[in-house]
Amino acid sequence: MAKTKRKRLSLRRPKSSKALNQIPGTVTYVGTKQSTETLLDVIDYNAEHYERFTSKNPQDALKFEDESKVTWINIDGLNNTGEIEKLGKYFELHPLILEDIANTNQRPKIDEYQDYLFIVAKMLYYNGDGTLQIEHISLVVGQDYVLTFQEAGGDVFDGVRERIEQKKGRIRNRNADYLMFALLDAIIDNYFIVVEDISEKIEGFEDQIFLNDQDDDLVREIQELKRAIVRIRRSVFPLREVLGRLEKLNHPIIDENTGNYLRDLVDHIIQISENIDIYREMIWSLMDMYMTTISNKMNEVMKVLTIMASIFIPLTFIAGIYGMNFEYIPELQWKYSYFVLWGVMIIVFFVMLYYFKRKKWL
Amino acid sequence: MAKTKRKRLSLRRPKSSKALNQIPGTVTYVGTKQSTETLLDVIDYNAEHYERFTSKNPQDALKFEDESKVTWINIDGLNNTGEIEKLGKYFELHPLILEDIANTNQRPKIDEYQDYLFIVAKMLYYNGDGTLQIEHISLVVGQDYVLTFQEAGGDVFDGVRERIEQKKGRIRNRNADYLMFALLDAIIDNYFIVVEDISEKIEGFEDQIFLNDQDDDLVREIQELKRAIVRIRRSVFPLREVLGRLEKLNHPIIDENTGNYLRDLVDHIIQISENIDIYREMIWSLMDMYMTTISNKMNEVMKVLTIMASIFIPLTFIAGIYGMNFEYIPELQWKYSYFVLWGVMIIVFFVMLYYFKRKKWL
Amino acid sequence: MAKTKRKRLSLRRPKSSKALNQIPGTVTYVGTKQSTETLLDVIDYNAEHYERFTSKNPQDALKFEDESKVTWINIDGLNNTGEIEKLGKYFELHPLILEDIANTNQRPKIDEYQDYLFIVAKMLYYNGDGTLQIEHISLVVGQDYVLTFQEAGGDVFDGVRERIEQKKGRIRNRNADYLMFALLDAIIDNYFIVVEDISEKIEGFEDQIFLNDQDDDLVREIQELKRAIVRIRRSVFPLREVLGRLEKLNHPIIDENTGNYLRDLVDHIIQISENIDIYREMIWSLMDMYMTTISNKMNEVMKVLTIMASIFIPLTFIAGIYGMNFEYIPELQWKYSYFVLWGVMIIVFFVMLYYFKRKKWL
Amino acid sequence: MAKTKRKRLSLRRPKSSKALNQIPGTVTYVGTKQSTETLLDVIDYNAEHYERFTSKNPQDALKFEDESKVTWINIDGLNNTGEIEKLGKYFELHPLILEDIANTNQRPKIDEYQDYLFIVAKMLYYNGDGTLQIEHISLVVGQDYVLTFQEAGGDVFDGVRERIEQKKGRIRNRNADYLMFALLDAIIDNYFIVVEDISEKIEGFEDQIFLNDQDDDLVREIQELKRAIVRIRRSVFPLREVLGRLEKLNHPIIDENTGNYLRDLVDHIIQISENIDIYREMIWSLMDMYMTTISNKMNEVMKVLTIMASIFIPLTFIAGIYGMNFEYIPELQWKYSYFVLWGVMIIVFFVMLYYFKRKKWL
Amino acid sequence: MAKTKRKRLSLRRPKSSKALNQIPGTVTYVGTKQSTETLLDVIDYNAEHYERFTSKNPQDALKFEDESKVTWINIDGLNNTGEIEKLGKYFELHPLILEDIANTNQRPKIDEYQDYLFIVAKMLYYNGDGTLQIEHISLVVGQDYVLTFQEAGGDVFDGVRERIEQKKGRIRNRNADYLMFALLDAIIDNYFIVVEDISEKIEGFEDQIFLNDQDDDLVREIQELKRAIVRIRRSVFPLREVLGRLEKLNHPIIDENTGNYLRDLVDHIIQISENIDIYREMIWSLMDMYMTTISNKMNEVMKVLTIMASIFIPLTFIAGIYGMNFEYIPELQWKYSYFVLWGVMIIVFFVMLYYFKRKKWL
Repeated sequence: MAKTKRKRLSLRRPKSSKALNQIPGTVTYVGTKQSTETLLDVIDYNAEHYERFTSKNPQDALKFEDESKVTWINIDGLNNTGEIEKLGKYFELHPLILEDIANTNQRPKIDEYQDYLFIVAKMLYYNGDGTLQIEHISLVVGQDYVLTFQEAGGDVFDGVRERIEQKKGRIRNRNADYLMFALLDAIIDNYFIVVEDISEKIEGFEDQIFLNDQDDDLVREIQELKRAIVRIRRSVFPLREVLGRLEKLNHPIIDENTGNYLRDLVDHIIQISENIDIYREMIWSLMDMYMTTISNKMNEVMKVLTIMASIFIPLTFIAGIYGMNFEYIPELQWKYSYFVLWGVMIIVFFVMLYYFKRKKWL
Repeated sequence: MAKTKRKRLSLRRPKSSKALNQIPGTVTYVGTKQSTETLLDVIDYNAEHYERFTSKNPQDALKFEDESKVTWINIDGLNNTGEIEKLGKYFELHPLILEDIANTNQRPKIDEYQDYLFIVAKMLYYNGDGTLQIEHISLVVGQDYVLTFQEAGGDVFDGVRERIEQKKGRIRNRNADYLMFALLDAIIDNYFIVVEDISEKIEGFEDQIFLNDQDDDLVREIQELKRAIVRIRRSVFPLREVLGRLEKLNHPIIDENTGNYLRDLVDHIIQISENIDIYREMIWSLMDMYMTTISNKMNEVMKVLTIMASIFIPLTFIAGIYGMNFEYIPELQWKYSYFVLWGVMIIVFFVMLYYFKRKKWL
Repeated sequence: MAKTKRKRLSLRRPKSSKALNQIPGTVTYVGTKQSTETLLDVIDYNAEHYERFTSKNPQDALKFEDESKVTWINIDGLNNTGEIEKLGKYFELHPLILEDIANTNQRPKIDEYQDYLFIVAKMLYYNGDGTLQIEHISLVVGQDYVLTFQEAGGDVFDGVRERIEQKKGRIRNRNADYLMFALLDAIIDNYFIVVEDISEKIEGFEDQIFLNDQDDDLVREIQELKRAIVRIRRSVFPLREVLGRLEKLNHPIIDENTGNYLRDLVDHIIQISENIDIYREMIWSLMDMYMTTISNKMNEVMKVLTIMASIFIPLTFIAGIYGMNFEYIPELQWKYSYFVLWGVMIIVFFVMLYYFKRKKWL
Repeated sequence: MAKTKRKRLSLRRPKSSKALNQIPGTVTYVGTKQSTETLLDVIDYNAEHYERFTSKNPQDALKFEDESKVTWINIDGLNNTGEIEKLGKYFELHPLILEDIANTNQRPKIDEYQDYLFIVAKMLYYNGDGTLQIEHISLVVGQDYVLTFQEAGGDVFDGVRERIEQKKGRIRNRNADYLMFALLDAIIDNYFIVVEDISEKIEGFEDQIFLNDQDDDLVREIQELKRAIVRIRRSVFPLREVLGRLEKLNHPIIDENTGNYLRDLVDHIIQISENIDIYREMIWSLMDMYMTTISNKMNEVMKVLTIMASIFIPLTFIAGIYGMNFEYIPELQWKYSYFVLWGVMIIVFFVMLYYFKRKKWL
Repeated sequence: MAKTKRKRLSLRRPKSSKALNQIPGTVTYVGTKQSTETLLDVIDYNAEHYERFTSKNPQDALKFEDESKVTWINIDGLNNTGEIEKLGKYFELHPLILEDIANTNQRPKIDEYQDYLFIVAKMLYYNGDGTLQIEHISLVVGQDYVLTFQEAGGDVFDGVRERIEQKKGRIRNRNADYLMFALLDAIIDNYFIVVEDISEKIEGFEDQIFLNDQDDDLVREIQELKRAIVRIRRSVFPLREVLGRLEKLNHPIIDENTGNYLRDLVDHIIQISENIDIYREMIWSLMDMYMTTISNKMNEVMKVLTIMASIFIPLTFIAGIYGMNFEYIPELQWKYSYFVLWGVMIIVFFVMLYYFKRKKWL
């Protein structure tokens, strides 16, 4: 249970799901994560070269205009929409892209522009205190650069950063498209963790139900998990289509070799989608099982009541008969009638017992 | 609860869902909103120029035949079908279009004509007293004009009017197709508000169920919400197809730049559709949860009954035994038998208590 | 309730759903409606001319071979299959068409022949005593004639006949294809009436459930409505495909102008189909609600039982104690013990009451 | 009920649903029907000529090599796989065809070969003692011959045989493709009979439920019917696709005229499929209704208990009070207190009665 | 029950469903089956020649480079990923293939490379102690060789090996593509066994429910079976698409003749998929039935309670009346009143009995 507490899913849907009645193209941040400032984390590399620094000034990023190197600029903090707009101007991004970067309710999608690709996805991860985070992330992928926009600090890309820095695997020898793949792969890898956690929770609920160990919160917890799955589903499913299109895209910045890797991503996202649907179904059947358990319990309660009442009500009646004050009740005068009555009662008692036994209620 | 009252959804479906046995092409208003007169609200603008006036005379609108300006004519009040027909003649609209303008049961659709586009949609908004309004709206979009036909006064376009008047955003520099986009965008923005309200209602119901705070009306209210969702769904879903076709349309009056914005609309309408389906599923599972709660409660009632009966029925039987009037009951003469009996009863009482405790009924 | 009786749906499926083991092409009537004779109702018209007469002799119809006029021949009564075959020969219809005309179980369809179109549909209407009729109707549409075959007298075409006779609307100026459209439109208009009636019934059931006013027949009536919807659905849904094909058909007898009107029909049939599916779902959720109501009621019954039993069983036990005949029960001799006991009982009574109040059972 | 017994569906799925771990192409019979010998029934005909004989020797069949006549060879008994293989060699059939002929678990399908078509279907019919038979049947259709392979004697083709013999209808004037159509038509005609029987069973169950006449076997019988529908569905549904392909096939042995008739078959199989799905849904809703009935009954039981207990428990308590043996109970000495008490009890009784009446429990 | 124990399904999902945050292309084994060493089983054959040996050294396998023979190399044990990578280098396999070979969570798929096909499937079989095994298997099929990678020893291919060794059937005369078909056929044959076992289990559960023989574990066992079906479904369903693509593939290593056999495989996998879906539905309806049974039982319990209480509570009340100690109760003095009272009680008893009989509770 300690664990359940640690990883409590944040279920409340963010309020004001769209900045309403805005002029289209307006950059409005509607998420809940607040950064005090917008921070750029820039990594510039090729097979031989590696450089990383952070800055608050977008202009610093622009010095890496050398096409022989890949520049990855990660921007944390979308609530300072002014900064985002300034960045957009530096990188010459379409105003609708800027709107989508800041609109954390935007569903995953891919938009193809002449010089770059624009991809929206959702990061799922557990943060420090075990809360599930659904974080909006946008990727702009050009020939020799990748821009990533996140709601706030904390992400799933540390593995990728390490691989770049320590020259692990192929990443230093490849272009921006491979970096994009590596980032998407890292996002999807974290989906597996979340999906596995759901599966464990379902098993936990099942055990609770079977061990008759459920507390009053079980229905609520199941309901919350159901809702969490719904939200995760909404974050993950559109990515399936996005990756499918990405794989089939014939865009100059996507190298043919990377295509193989993208096919792999599609495989993974399909697998996750299938699992999510399976867990959805399992959670429905969990409620079914729970109902059955309740019914079984009530059955048991009823049996106890019926057995107690059925045995003692007739006996009490018999006792009542001989508690009557009629002047002339012949049995009352007989010497052994009290003991005979006990005998009769004991026989009735055992006949009843046998009857319930045969009915398999005992 | 005050809020629930304020925003009560009007659920009754309008009667006579089609003017039956009419000659096809007959313009018949079947809605419930009544305007005393049909009013034209005309806005004429381009980047430099802005003019607005209202009139009851369609001919007044025709003076803006200057192609360099965009003319937006908004017509309120469809119940005066005679006026509508007159307007139709002025603007040379096809008779079937006029029928669709007046037939408030027409589902959202798009019809492509040589010189103009005809779009039917539904406005969802809360009016003054918090009632959800589903209002039929038709757009006729030509090269330099937009006609909007509404059932009655009150709409969701005030933001657009303000932007035109105050020259906010791009709208004054663009053509009629951008105005069409802005109007559709305003309609869809209001869907988000309604959908959010539904989501809040569902959460309210959930809390009521979990806090055991449900009154007798809960099932009815859930049922009403279910029906409201069904009606909203019917208003919103066909628009998905309409916007999809609009985006792909290769019609001269749609500028290529506007296409990007339309793609955005499609994104939004898909998101709303998905949310509606999610809420639909959640409301089903709400009924499930409610059933579980009822069952749990009945279980509790049964337990109380069973415990009370199981404890006191045997004790009453014992008391009944010694209330019998047999002449010879040896125990009755013994001095301490009354106190011994009390002891026996107290033991029976605690044995029972222990038994129910172990069964976790207490 | 009077109304429910008036409009009782005839639910029993006709027996022998196909004339079995027949030679293919055999004309067999399997419906239940019996006409004593097959009657031809012939209307011949163009913009200037109008003539109408009835006859039992097919040959009478043939005199209108003038191509400048539209001839509508309506045949009532399919049970005289000999007559149908004779008619078929006169009009040179394919034997499989004749089989489909008589086979009232044939689902709606469209068959395209070189010189004519063959359309099968179902008329839904309430006859005099309020019973829902599902009547098989076949249309053969040629260049300058329309043949309609109905099971028996009584149909939904009176509006069309009136329009022809009184020269209302466009019909007298158009060709046979427009007449076909007008007839199909009349059929579909009646679907709206039936669908509306279903919706009213559902609302009636809902009110019954919420007002706790249900009698024993409610479940049966809901079940009957469910079955009626199933049958209506089966009559209506295939027409969607039929009209879709009709709209796209490039057949010489369909004028381009009529295409616009057909698109309108498709709109209507889609709307009806959607409504039927919505009512289907609503009726399922009606059963759900009914179950909830039953459970709530049982809960209430249980509560009354539990309160009564829990209060009086312990009190009866106490009374039983002092009804025992032990020689030495000290309390019995005390002067005020009877009144003290009453005090104790009243306290127990109110403690119980308070307990149930706090549990919100009272 | 007698009827239900007569037509009991054989529900147990045949064991060993595939001859496992066999070399592909091995001819293995896995059905349950045993014929002692494989019998050929040969009919040879054209418009003028008709001949029929039976034989155990495949070679006898080969003498009809005259292309101007149609030869229909019907083979009963698949368990003698040796014979089947011999026949296969005579008719030069592909080994995989032979495997499919003997494998009674093969689902309906159509395979197109250069000189012939291979069609697998399922015959549904009631045999003598009213048991539903699902029999595997394979058709090989060539230019001037049709081979039909059945599991055992007894089929649905007697009507076709009679038509050939007695020259009814078109069959004697047509080719092998029309014979194929006639056989498939006969198979599908029998589906209608089976489907109608299901519909009658469902109605019977409904009546049982509504008349409160259900015995303990009802749930089991419903479950069995559900399973029967599942099996029938599996036999019928794939045929839809088969006939659809057959209709569209451009194979030399299919005459264009026969195409019209095939379209008719497709119509029929769609109609049957739709009915099966409707019955499936109805049977689910039957269980729903049954549950409702049970709940209603339990409600009634509970009410009786509650009324009895609520009325008599307080009365018994009152009687208990005055059965106490306190020395000083003032009421005991009063002369009319016994009668007063009776009055009080009768008042309590009627108050209770009124209370339950108002609650509509009586 | 002994059998149920023997064939217990292993339901727990393997932990760590993907080696997370790995560099893409990394070969990581995530399964649970451990082999101490990776073993190669090599079979080399053509029509005349047959040779078989096992080795731990991949290089041994390479000596069979003669293209006129088919070489089947079966590798057991995926946990030694180092060995797998070495093998991959010998056979020049793409790194992503190696990752998929070792990743036992990879869903079935087919990848087409220039010189070979890569197929992932799942073997389902019962091992020695009756546990269901879901084993990951990968096939690499080249012009004259087939590589099969299994998690551990024990598979479903003994029949194929025997056929090769003993020259049964066509296999020795065919190429590597036919061997691939034979292996896939063997895998699918085992699906039939597993699916049949599920069907038997469902029937067993049904019998338990109908015979009222269910123990407390029944719900849990049904739930486990449900989960097993979900897992099997996930293993089997993607293969449908794989085989569909394989059949349509126009790859040089697939001989046209083998195409016929592949079509057969597709038939089989569709049949299995359909069966799995049917069993899924049946198991849902099993829970329904179980709920009905519980409700019926509770009904019976309630009836017994109601009958006992309703009969004896009024009788006890009557007895209570005459147990009162009023000074003046006239009946007490009458001589035969005790016997009259017995008479009254017996009449009440039988009236009650008759009442319950008429209500069909007895």
